[in-house]
Formats: sequence, C-alpha cells, structure tokens
Amino acid sequence: MSVAGPSGQDAIAAADAWMADNRQRLLDELFDLIRCPSVSTDPAYKDGMDKAAALLQARLARMGMADVQLLNNGGHSAVFAQWTGAPGMPTILVYGHYDVQPPDPLEAWASPPFEPTLHADRYVARGASDDKSPLWIALSGLEAWLAVTGGLPLNVKVLLEGEEEIGSRSLPGLFVSHRELLSADVLVSADGGRWRPGTPSVNTNSRGNIGMELHVQTAGTDLHSGRYGGPVGNAAMVLARMLATLHDADGRIAVPGFMDGLQRPSNSDYASMEALGFDEAKFFAEIGAVPGAIEPGVRLLESLWLRPTIEVNGLTSGYQGVGGKTVIPATASAKITCRLGPGQDPVRAAEAVEKHLLAHCPRWATAEVRRSRGGTAAYAVPEDDRFLAAVERVIEQVHGRKPLRVGVGGTLPISAMVKEHLGLETVMLSYAIADENIHAPNEFFRLSSFDDGLKAWVRALPELAKA
Amino acid sequence: MSVAGPSGQDAIAAADAWMADNRQRLLDELFDLIRCPSVSTDPAYKDGMDKAAALLQARLARMGMADVQLLNNGGHSAVFAQWTGAPGMPTILVYGHYDVQPPDPLEAWASPPFEPTLHADRYVARGASDDKSPLWIALSGLEAWLAVTGGLPLNVKVLLEGEEEIGSRSLPGLFVSHRELLSADVLVSADGGRWRPGTPSVNTNSRGNIGMELHVQTAGTDLHSGRYGGPVGNAAMVLARMLATLHDADGRIAVPGFMDGLQRPSNSDYASMEALGFDEAKFFAEIGAVPGAIEPGVRLLESLWLRPTIEVNGLTSGYQGVGGKTVIPATASAKITCRLGPGQDPVRAAEAVEKHLLAHCPRWATAEVRRSRGGTAAYAVPEDDRFLAAVERVIEQVHGRKPLRVGVGGTLPISAMVKEHLGLETVMLSYAIADENIHAPNEFFRLSSFDDGLKAWVRALPELAKA
Repeated sequence: MSVAGPSGQDAIAAADAWMADNRQRLLDELFDLIRCPSVSTDPAYKDGMDKAAALLQARLARMGMADVQLLNNGGHSAVFAQWTGAPGMPTILVYGHYDVQPPDPLEAWASPPFEPTLHADRYVARGASDDKSPLWIALSGLEAWLAVTGGLPLNVKVLLEGEEEIGSRSLPGLFVSHRELLSADVLVSADGGRWRPGTPSVNTNSRGNIGMELHVQTAGTDLHSGRYGGPVGNAAMVLARMLATLHDADGRIAVPGFMDGLQRPSNSDYASMEALGFDEAKFFAEIGAVPGAIEPGVRLLESLWLRPTIEVNGLTSGYQGVGGKTVIPATASAKITCRLGPGQDPVRAAEAVEKHLLAHCPRWATAEVRRSRGGTAAYAVPEDDRFLAAVERVIEQVHGRKPLRVGVGGTLPISAMVKEHLGLETVMLSYAIADENIHAPNEFFRLSSFDDGLKAWVRALPELAKA
Repeated sequence: MSVAGPSGQDAIAAADAWMADNRQRLLDELFDLIRCPSVSTDPAYKDGMDKAAALLQARLARMGMADVQLLNNGGHSAVFAQWTGAPGMPTILVYGHYDVQPPDPLEAWASPPFEPTLHADRYVARGASDDKSPLWIALSGLEAWLAVTGGLPLNVKVLLEGEEEIGSRSLPGLFVSHRELLSADVLVSADGGRWRPGTPSVNTNSRGNIGMELHVQTAGTDLHSGRYGGPVGNAAMVLARMLATLHDADGRIAVPGFMDGLQRPSNSDYASMEALGFDEAKFFAEIGAVPGAIEPGVRLLESLWLRPTIEVNGLTSGYQGVGGKTVIPATASAKITCRLGPGQDPVRAAEAVEKHLLAHCPRWATAEVRRSRGGTAAYAVPEDDRFLAAVERVIEQVHGRKPLRVGVGGTLPISAMVKEHLGLETVMLSYAIADENIHAPNEFFRLSSFDDGLKAWVRALPELAKA
C-alpha cells in the first residue's frame, strides 16, 4: 500500500476524528449538491444537472482522486474518478447517482423541495435520500482516508450516473466503450435502502421486472348498448376475462412457461427471513389491506422478495366519467408489469405472458401485447461472496450486531447490468431507509443515518481491501 | 263526430292538399322550434327550454286545441293540450318531447347545431330527428284535420315533455297528479325511430334496462409493486376476475336468478324476424366487428331485441397515463348496465347481479355495488292490440306494403311508465330513422321522412278512430 499516514485501527480512529472535525462542512457541501435541481427526466432542469455534475467533479478532484472526467453516451453525463495507488489490492467500483425525481406535486411539500430544511433529526429535500446523501457519505469515506493517510487501502473507481431515474439509458453503452476504465472486482452501490431503522441489514437480492400493455378491440367504435348489445362483443369484458386467466382460483400464476428457471429459496434464504421476526399484522395494517391474497404455501417475505408476480397496474375502457353511459366499449387496455424471481429470464417470461394472453383472446376480438423494451432479471449476490462478507463485518462493527440479509422486492437494474456487461457482483452499502418518502413529496434523510454512514464507509475501505 | 267539413276519403284528400299548400310554412315553423336551444340537462339553456315550450303552446292554441297548459312537477314543464269533441270515440294521448341532447362536441358540427341547415335531401340540426320533427309532424296532422274539417276524427290529448333526455323525472308525479286529465285509451308515441330507410316497419317492443357501478378496494392507497407485490391484493385484478364470472365460457349470462321471468319469443316474434331478411354480414361490417360473440343457439335479431345483456360500459383503475407505472391499484371500478328482456323484473334482476358480484369478491377485498335508481322493464305491445293494427294499416296505406314488426334493442321508459301509471299500451308512429346521428354531432332529418310522416299522421287519426 502506498498509504503514507497511520494504518490499521489507528487510521480508522484518525478518520473518525477527521469526520467529527469536518462534519458540518460535509453537510454544508452536501446541501449545496442537493440545491442543484438535477431532475434528469425534464430538459428544463438541464442547468441543475450540469451544476450537480460540476460540483461532484470539483469535489473528487479536490479530495485527491485522479482521472476525474465526464463519461457521455448521448444522454446526461456520468461522473468518473479513480485512485489506483494500491497495486495488488482489490479494485472496487463505487456507484451512485446524482439525478433525482421531479419534485411534483409541489404543493404537497412542507418546504421548498430543493432547499434542504432541518426538522428535528432529519433534513427534508428532493434527493436527500435518493441518492445524494448516500453517495456523499461514500465520497466522504474516501476523502477522510485520503486526508488522514494520503491514500486509500484499496483501488477505488467512482461512477456517479445522471440517468438512474430514467432507466440508466447510457450505462450499457458506457460499459462497452469504457470497459477497461470501469473494470473492477466488485460494484459497491451507495444506492438502495436499508430495511428499516434499528435493524442492521444488508440487501442481498432484488427482483427483476418486465412490462407490457394489453390492448383489446371488438369493434370500430364504441356502440350503443341498446342498439347493439347481445350479438356484439364487449372489449372491457373480453379484457377482464383475459386478465382473469393469469392466475388460478387460489392466486397462483397460471401462465405456462412463465415460471421456467425460477429458483427455490435456499435454506439460508429461509433462515434470513425467519431471523427478521417480521410483523405481518403490522405490514397489512400499515397499508390498509387484509391478509389472504398471497399464493398458498408461500411465506410473506418469500412472496415479497423471491416470488414472481403479475400485476395489473391500470385499466382503461369505455366511459369513465360521472354517471352512466350505455355504451359497449370497442377498446380496452391494461398496463401489466411482472416482478421476476431469481432464475427467470426476462425475455422468456414476457413472451410467456404475451402468448398466454393472446391464446385467451376470443376469435371475434383482436388483442395486441405491446412489450416494454428490455426488462431486468432478478439479482442475488452469491451467498459466499467475499465482498458481501466484508460489508457484513463493517455493519457489525458500526452497529454491534451481525446484519440480517434481506431482499428487495423492487428492481435494481444496475446490478443486472454490471453483472451482464462487466461480470461484476454487487454489494450494497447505503444508509437510506425505505421509509424516507423516496420519489414522493417531503423526501428526507436522517442525521443519525448520515453519522452511521460516515462510520461505515470509513471502515468499509479497509474491510473490502482485506476481502 | 262533430266534424263539420268533409269526411272519409274526401277529408283525407283535403288534408293532403292542405299539407301541400302549407308545407313550407310548417317547415319554417319547425325550424323556429329547432332554433330554440332546448337542452334540458344544462341550466344554461333554460331560456331555450322556455322558448320552445312557449312556441308549442302558441301553436297548439292557434290550431284549435283546448286547455293548452304547462304541467309542472318541479322540473321542466310538459306542454299539454286536448281536443275532446268526439264523444263515444277513442281517446289517444299523443306523446313527444321538446328537449334535446347537448350539442357538444361543438367542433364536430359542420354547421351551427341550432341553425337548421339544408344539405340536399336532409336538414341538419340538434333535435332535427330527436324529437322535434317527429312531434311537429304529429301536430301538423292534427292541424290539417282541424283546418279542413273543423275538428278531429277522435279525441286527442297531447303531452310534450321537456325531460326525456334526463330520464323523464317529472312524469311519474304528473301521472299521479293529473291522472284524469291524462286518461286515454292508448299512448301514440311520436318518439322512437323506424328500423331503416326503405323498409316499412312498426316498433312493437323494447328492452328494459338497469344500471350499477361496481367498486372494489384492496388497500388504503395504491402501492409500489416492488415493495408490496405478492402478498397484497390487486384491485384491478379482483375486478377483472369478478366481471369474468358474469358469463360462462360460451358467453351465456351466468348470474343465478337474473333470467327469472324472461319470456321466450313467440312464433309471431320469430316470424317477424324471419320476414325482415336481415343482412347479418352487413350489420357486423358496418360496425367493424366480427361475428361470434352471440350466445349459442340465439338468432341475431332475437339477441338484439329480446335477450337480456350484461355489459361493462367502462373500466377505471390505477395508472392510465402514458408509459408505465409500477403500481398495485388499491381501487378499481366498473360501470355496468343490463338490457332486460320481456318478463324480467328490473329490481329483481339488479339484485341478482349485485348478489352474484358480491359473492365473487374474495374475503381479503371489499366490493360495493351502487345501483342506479329505478330501472325500466321491457315493453311489448300486445300482438293483437287494436291500435297497433290501426298503425299498421296507416303505414300500409302510405308505403303500399304491410309494415314489418320490429323490436328496439334500446329502452323506451315512457312505455313502461304509462303502462304502470295510466294502464296504457303504447303504439309508435315516428318517422325518425335510426341512422340520423341521434345524440351525436350533425343530427339530421330527411325531407322525405317529413313528407311521409305528414301523410301518415293525416291517415292515422281516422284509422285510430276506427280501432
């Protein structure tokens, strides 16, 4: 190692002390980043995107990272930097994103969305949780080590993209054009969230997803139900009948071929779920739902983290205004998305749903399935991954308890992407928590999470170096 | 009879000649009526309603009708008049309505909706077909007889309501409060339409209808399909599965009790359908539909005129905008209307559908059926009704061919209402045709229908007198 200062526990203690001395400055600078309205989906915010990228570049250069640059593939640039002064040591690719969701609806915010506002133990702002604080914490860990020891315990590349909220469109191309620059031993994600406050946990898997729209047509135009009702098909009814075939009477998915490749949970998966002591009654009470919709024989957390779903996200047909209208709808449509479990192939799964739906369209109606491009496979870091073990040690050091392995019911495309293009596994070390109004008004982040995160990233670098 | 002028064929010939002499004036005055924007559903058109009612009162008084008055039950007034100078002869109650549908969408009109505009053999305007021309033709028949003979061949009461387009709300109350004034031997309706141009026909039955909305709820709010998908119910899917139970796999209604009381078509019904020589291929081609949705073993016209239906008129759930949104809808709703065949009781039929739907709601969801008030039973004039025979003779005299008896797939609440409250059967003598863009932009009426109608009403009065 080319580290010039203290090493081992001394270095960690020195970095902790540096954090304490610099905490307010780090927060102030984070708030400057949050004040950049970096909404990637809306061209009106281009200035905010550019400002955020420039601010990150300046910080990375100032703290001693090399090769600071923007990587561009036609969309919003990604910010890259590296420090490769630890030959023979592992190389980690630290990932985060500086773009945020639009702040709408503006009237629902208690304070201006791009002005970080302290409320007791938290600060409120768009991007506070997703993903500006978590990525800033990671960069602060690097800065502390660089400041205290003059180097890092391992090789570090940083990739902060500006298109996470719009599907990471540029990343696959950048992975091809910059394969060498981005090569590493593992992706360490500063995106994603912890399970809940108070329970140390590490995310080890996420579900995949696919999307499509089903369109049904039964006539050239909506028809008067008196003049035509009886011999003529009803698109809304055809749609309902087709959708009803997706599951059997017990709620099991009934689409042939859809489940192909799905892996059963491992004993270790079941052990993790058991260990969580999950409060199912509270889960349903919080969302105003009644238990019972789950497929038979499947546990709740298994259903959430590892089982595929087919969901109708929206229905549209005929007259939807106030009162009645005696019309036979000529068209009807449903938006459909599926979550995928480990082992399912997104393309084959989507084909299976399409084939099944079309097979259930009566011959006197026409149906079309418009599939969304791509889709994402489920991801699980191998249970014995050495970097996962390192992250677990870090969390144990910070929180005094071995973290629980938890799943994410949602989809993290970056994991599937780097696995496919760069051959990397993903470990996650983010201090966001799932309850922080992500993508919603009054997004917030906890000051306690900020402090825990700084401790964790100080310890993560030497632990990952040991992996 | 107190008729002072010519009688029998001489009187008819004289009335025809009077029509020829007065044709342009009758059209001009009809256009004045059409120019009154009498939209009953929108308070902004109150002036137009009042003007139309005043114009009708003035005409009825001027042509020699007695007791001209407005009947009011809290809504828009109905215009009443009578001529009862034929003791011992039958009394007919001539029915029409002077209110019209709103003209929206205005931009779809080729000419101003309330300015009758001649295009070749037709005039275009809101209310031209429904129902201002047909009622004007009926009044012109009365005027011709009064002008030529100084009286009428039978007793005539006229009831022109102003709320047909908003459910004839005031009529039941008026039938109670003015039972004596409105008493008659038969209702002769100048509303309703002929089957198609070129085929003399008389409407002898109509279907009933009922309406309701089905609302399903599975959670307190829409949920993220990643965070909650699997153990939590999906309201859109529950709705689809409930709706799919309304029919069996062959398209037969599968709601227990719904069909109770339904009468099978008579041999005479089948003979009428057969006689029509209905072009089924053309029927489907015109609406851009493919045959096959009909329930097994039922003929097309039987399905249209005499069989009940359960139709979904609209579906609403979840995200309906552009692109996708990975949401689990917490609520979903369907608008449902049913056409009823002869013999079905509207209340019992609605109860059967409600009970069936609720029985198919899973215990982890909640469903509510909001039934529309009332509902209307199917109506059929008795096959041997003497006034029906009279109307058939009139049509044969005008068109040289015995008319076919046809059904109406839609619902004519006035027939069920006068049957219930006044004990009257309904015969229909309207020269509107089903293709005249009723309730749509560019509504029109044919000049040839106007002339045929005048001939028919001149002949109808003596024929109904003979019945």
